[in-house]
Amino acid sequence: MSPAPRQALLSHIGEFQLIQSIARGFSSRGPRPLVGIGDDAAILSRSSGSHLVISTDLLVEDIHFSRTTASFYDIGYKAAVANLSDIAAMGATPTYILMAIALPSHLKYHDWKELYRGLSVPCKAHGVQLVGGDTSASRSSLFLAITILGQVEPNRGLTRGGAREGELIYVSGSLGNSAAGLACLTHQATQVNTSTLRQPMKFLVSRHLRPTPRIALGRLLSSRGFASSALDLSDGLSGDLRHLCQQSHVGALIREASLPLSPHLVAYAAEMNVDPLLWALHGGEEYELLFTVPPKYQRRLELAVKQLGIPVTAIGVMTPRRSGLRIAHPDGKTQKLLPQSYVHFSD
Amino acid sequence: MSPAPRQALLSHIGEFQLIQSIARGFSSRGPRPLVGIGDDAAILSRSSGSHLVISTDLLVEDIHFSRTTASFYDIGYKAAVANLSDIAAMGATPTYILMAIALPSHLKYHDWKELYRGLSVPCKAHGVQLVGGDTSASRSSLFLAITILGQVEPNRGLTRGGAREGELIYVSGSLGNSAAGLACLTHQATQVNTSTLRQPMKFLVSRHLRPTPRIALGRLLSSRGFASSALDLSDGLSGDLRHLCQQSHVGALIREASLPLSPHLVAYAAEMNVDPLLWALHGGEEYELLFTVPPKYQRRLELAVKQLGIPVTAIGVMTPRRSGLRIAHPDGKTQKLLPQSYVHFSD
Repeated sequence: MSPAPRQALLSHIGEFQLIQSIARGFSSRGPRPLVGIGDDAAILSRSSGSHLVISTDLLVEDIHFSRTTASFYDIGYKAAVANLSDIAAMGATPTYILMAIALPSHLKYHDWKELYRGLSVPCKAHGVQLVGGDTSASRSSLFLAITILGQVEPNRGLTRGGAREGELIYVSGSLGNSAAGLACLTHQATQVNTSTLRQPMKFLVSRHLRPTPRIALGRLLSSRGFASSALDLSDGLSGDLRHLCQQSHVGALIREASLPLSPHLVAYAAEMNVDPLLWALHGGEEYELLFTVPPKYQRRLELAVKQLGIPVTAIGVMTPRRSGLRIAHPDGKTQKLLPQSYVHFSD
Repeated sequence: MSPAPRQALLSHIGEFQLIQSIARGFSSRGPRPLVGIGDDAAILSRSSGSHLVISTDLLVEDIHFSRTTASFYDIGYKAAVANLSDIAAMGATPTYILMAIALPSHLKYHDWKELYRGLSVPCKAHGVQLVGGDTSASRSSLFLAITILGQVEPNRGLTRGGAREGELIYVSGSLGNSAAGLACLTHQATQVNTSTLRQPMKFLVSRHLRPTPRIALGRLLSSRGFASSALDLSDGLSGDLRHLCQQSHVGALIREASLPLSPHLVAYAAEMNVDPLLWALHGGEEYELLFTVPPKYQRRLELAVKQLGIPVTAIGVMTPRRSGLRIAHPDGKTQKLLPQSYVHFSD
């Protein structure tokens, strides 16, 4: 990636490049992090015991969430999951969370409470305590800044940089549900056959508003040493797989026919006349894990996830770097998979 | 404090009450923090070694800073100091920092770099590494969410709750400079005798834009066990002393004649026809430490700070809770000291 020109507008520079440029410009005499900027979370060593995992996230109204499709409870809930998911992607156990919020002054106390109530539910489910916060006014929209902490055994943290050629690519759950769920919410007024679609739409909306942080899976992958790399699907498979390839210096080939699609997604897509693959490949906010597994661990992994009741699917294989990121269609033809994930500053 | 009515507007509820209400509503089966919400930072225990100190802060344009009186470099610099100061107030050593920013898309890459360059300078000076970040778009103004980490020896962390009746109240540095510096910046167009005031104004503006995080003092107070409580002056002496009294369940009496005022503040106030005490008592963003010391440690403390070259001043004494917060005027009369610190949501 070439350095950004000094006077370039931020809208012409991707977030990834911005973050890389921070990492280059900032150094210090202090202890180096084991994993720094550019992964789902940083890993900081301690003199003894488990390592500290930390991630921070700023969620902006009408960029990351909208009050037209989500209640305050929903916004809090999903903010917690997005952050728990970053810890899951490192193979770590979440421990503490902090939330700073900037609130438009016309909001009601009840709205604020609902935001925290939503945040608390997934946190409580994973034994995560709220240990810090800061509330200030905003003259414009609602902002949430969340920091989450976790811990992982030394040398067990999963990063985006560990994938090797020949390894299998896995995803948890099924793909595209969150993006389709958002479509359900935004197109509710559209004429659809709602009696047939009631169940599919209910499922998809629930995946959009109540995603599952894959903590148990992340812990399994790291503690048993099954995965060589992992990240969570927040930008969409095509975009997140690209991050994995870039940081691991490899290519990837995924098989279209292997992508796990829920019957609900297929039913809704058919009614809406949309190719469900578009949602599965490019839809964001899945909070499923994308990870790579050396072939020798395949059987042990699949047995272990079966015992835990976590659905995972092998969707492809890591290839040489020069092959880039490709998708094999059912007819055997392959083509370049271009990321269409959400890019900040692009609008 | 009585519970807030369900439908109350947030503008009628102070930040302190909001944060208290979070702490009540949020609990979990996980490990309890040693110090949770309501102090400058949380303290989290570890199984061995030093304890983890963490604080998070959301800085909002035109609430916490303004681009009319501060450059991007200034904003980054001060954001770092505000957070380093929270770690200093706990008696801890800062280690790592994370910054998530939401940027209006019209900002230039250069502005963004300047923000980070400002942030890096006080961090580098204290050996603090940037280990995480997130950059997203904002449709409105500039937001910075900062999380800072530090470490402190077990049972050495300084809180707001440890002050006892009869202890001495100290502040570092001199008071009111930051608020007066802001006045210099906002009233630059005003007719003042600038040749006489050039030096005072330069000093005051520098205290406003380049405050000093009192890390070395905080470390001295905690490692030698001199202080029973501490916090940093971010809301202004009257407001912050009130927080200390509330959390320690004591009252306080400060002596007007003992308040440390810089000659520059006095000179500028005289020219502007302002009582410098108003700035000293109520001006925010000082980032000096306010701390309490048992009388038996007074001599040892004063010797130690002299050796380190850190100016500290005894300004009063902790009193019984029922006495409240009072100020003694030079004529011997005392009166209630009402906080006039900046209250979010009040405008």
